[in-house]
Amino acid sequence: MQTPATPAAVIHLGRMQRNIERMQSRMDALGVKFRPHVKTAKCLPVARAQRAAGAQGITVSTLKEASEFFAAGFDDILYAVGMVAPKLPQALALRRQGCRLQLLVDSADAARAIAAFGREHGERFEVLIEVDTDGHRAGVQPESDTLLEVGRALADGGCALAGVMTHAGASYELDTPEALEAMAEQERAGCVRAAERLRAAGLPCPIVSVGSTPTALSARSLAGVTEVRAGVYVFFDLVMANVGVCTLDDIALGVLTTVIGHQPDKGWAIVDAGWMAMSRDRGTGSQKHDYGYGQVCDADGRVLEGYVLSDANQEHGILSRAGAVDTGIAQKFPVGTQLRILPNHACATGAQFPEYLAVAGDGSVEAWPRFYGW
Amino acid sequence: MQTPATPAAVIHLGRMQRNIERMQSRMDALGVKFRPHVKTAKCLPVARAQRAAGAQGITVSTLKEASEFFAAGFDDILYAVGMVAPKLPQALALRRQGCRLQLLVDSADAARAIAAFGREHGERFEVLIEVDTDGHRAGVQPESDTLLEVGRALADGGCALAGVMTHAGASYELDTPEALEAMAEQERAGCVRAAERLRAAGLPCPIVSVGSTPTALSARSLAGVTEVRAGVYVFFDLVMANVGVCTLDDIALGVLTTVIGHQPDKGWAIVDAGWMAMSRDRGTGSQKHDYGYGQVCDADGRVLEGYVLSDANQEHGILSRAGAVDTGIAQKFPVGTQLRILPNHACATGAQFPEYLAVAGDGSVEAWPRFYGW
Repeated sequence: MQTPATPAAVIHLGRMQRNIERMQSRMDALGVKFRPHVKTAKCLPVARAQRAAGAQGITVSTLKEASEFFAAGFDDILYAVGMVAPKLPQALALRRQGCRLQLLVDSADAARAIAAFGREHGERFEVLIEVDTDGHRAGVQPESDTLLEVGRALADGGCALAGVMTHAGASYELDTPEALEAMAEQERAGCVRAAERLRAAGLPCPIVSVGSTPTALSARSLAGVTEVRAGVYVFFDLVMANVGVCTLDDIALGVLTTVIGHQPDKGWAIVDAGWMAMSRDRGTGSQKHDYGYGQVCDADGRVLEGYVLSDANQEHGILSRAGAVDTGIAQKFPVGTQLRILPNHACATGAQFPEYLAVAGDGSVEAWPRFYGW
Repeated sequence: MQTPATPAAVIHLGRMQRNIERMQSRMDALGVKFRPHVKTAKCLPVARAQRAAGAQGITVSTLKEASEFFAAGFDDILYAVGMVAPKLPQALALRRQGCRLQLLVDSADAARAIAAFGREHGERFEVLIEVDTDGHRAGVQPESDTLLEVGRALADGGCALAGVMTHAGASYELDTPEALEAMAEQERAGCVRAAERLRAAGLPCPIVSVGSTPTALSARSLAGVTEVRAGVYVFFDLVMANVGVCTLDDIALGVLTTVIGHQPDKGWAIVDAGWMAMSRDRGTGSQKHDYGYGQVCDADGRVLEGYVLSDANQEHGILSRAGAVDTGIAQKFPVGTQLRILPNHACATGAQFPEYLAVAGDGSVEAWPRFYGW
């Protein structure tokens, strides 16, 4: 590979493809549709690789993602953040252009707002109800009256009640196979239960959508589930390695950086990947292995055991040996040395870059643009 | 102000202008040039407002910033990150186009690399030596042999040894006027001492450049200093409020967000500003007042005492009353309510947005583009 300007976000294509195939083959074996969350990469070639492997439809976290991916030929899109009135004109415009955009709500107020807007504009919005199966964020309880109230507000208001969805983001806080398996079952059972209650009340519920990278890779059964969503698995990262669903050798995203100086007495090398490149994400700080701002690898991605970015300023990273002062750091990593840093959180690190350098097995490099904003 | 799509980065122009004038008048009173660091906003209209108030030249943290600002008519630019060989062709190109780009080094190796490249291409680079006055990052010690070695490598190698510069970033960790004043004096004295040692060794040192927002606002004397740099003062943020150099009412950058749901039993409102909008910066987490992911204000920027973004996912912020469960949260902040969130760290939050909405005192709004990447 040629030496590009640093810092640069590098994708190891072999690893990415392996991650994509691992997830898809798991979903195929469990007999469910897989709808990847494209918020991690926000990059068309990545989503195309997921689709080529068998993914059906995509999940987005912003209407900007919906617009960008729809313009590139992805027309089956779940917007997996609670919908509110000010965003409805944009959703309507996408549907009028032929995008099968599905919306999400977790309150009767929001459901009624969508229904009213739909009636006003003659649009039958497809809407899922968000279900809370782990207490970490949004969603209605599977056993709640609110679930049925929201369902009726949608169905009676003229929307297509498309189903239920949940995201067990609390799985990110676990780190044993047993706990992950239990969380996957909790996520499945809660979402299926919500679907059953809607159906028992005479309401439609064709879609039962669950997912997070850790639960998708840990579920033993997906009985009653129709589709699974996951995002970060495509790159993986150090948080996921601590959770236990990948190894460091699966991590497909790295930040290429150059050594720009040293403080030998402190055992520091200074590199040009600060937090602007790595992001401020310190997700491994509360996990069993704290990697600082990232795990140091050589320029080709081979892990340099024990070396981490221990601190970061905006455009300066401080590279050191974890728990020790390596006074030979300037000899080990002379000025100009290129290194690759594995990130804590691929979604946050990717977002700092206008493009990825996608590196193939033969060393050839393609620039893949990514977008940002709302 | 009309209701724009959320999340959106909003600049309160009145506060920004007041911040700019406060800093500039201080620098004028202390008799030094002021060279603002444009890495905070990466936005032309912001830098133009700084220049209009009296700033001379700019400081940048990336060569991308240098290129963008030079193309817009800023031709006196200090690149304040240690220079390495792979970036020299880009620096040369800028200088050949007429940009007075100054470079920075803190090792003899890097100095020799610049000198050799300059001789090869017939370019007399202007280079400053980075001095370490607070132990927090890069730079040579004022009393070190290395200082003189680097100076000689530059001067003997054919570079213009332009001076010394330091940045007391450790000032961010302080929070009393006395400690800040002492740090400002430590920064000044160390940098002036380095200049004196170079001059005593027969080397030129016209520029003595110091600065950080806290020290620039705390220095009592800048004797021997020729210019000051600071960046975040233009917007200020919650970290700076904790440091004690601004109040919440000085913070000019906020993230406009919309309430999208609730978990009333937990006292949560869910908003559409998650960490993708706020950034992952948790700088106040280690300060005397922890604001979570940000201080909640009404849509016009009036502080709602006690309400913070207590947690954040990628596109979801969790708004709650600090230290209490407000079970009336859904009534207080109904779905659709717009709020403004003051950020922990303006440099990190601004970087998440392709543009700012600059709001004038009369409520009129202009979209100001900002750039990113390297």
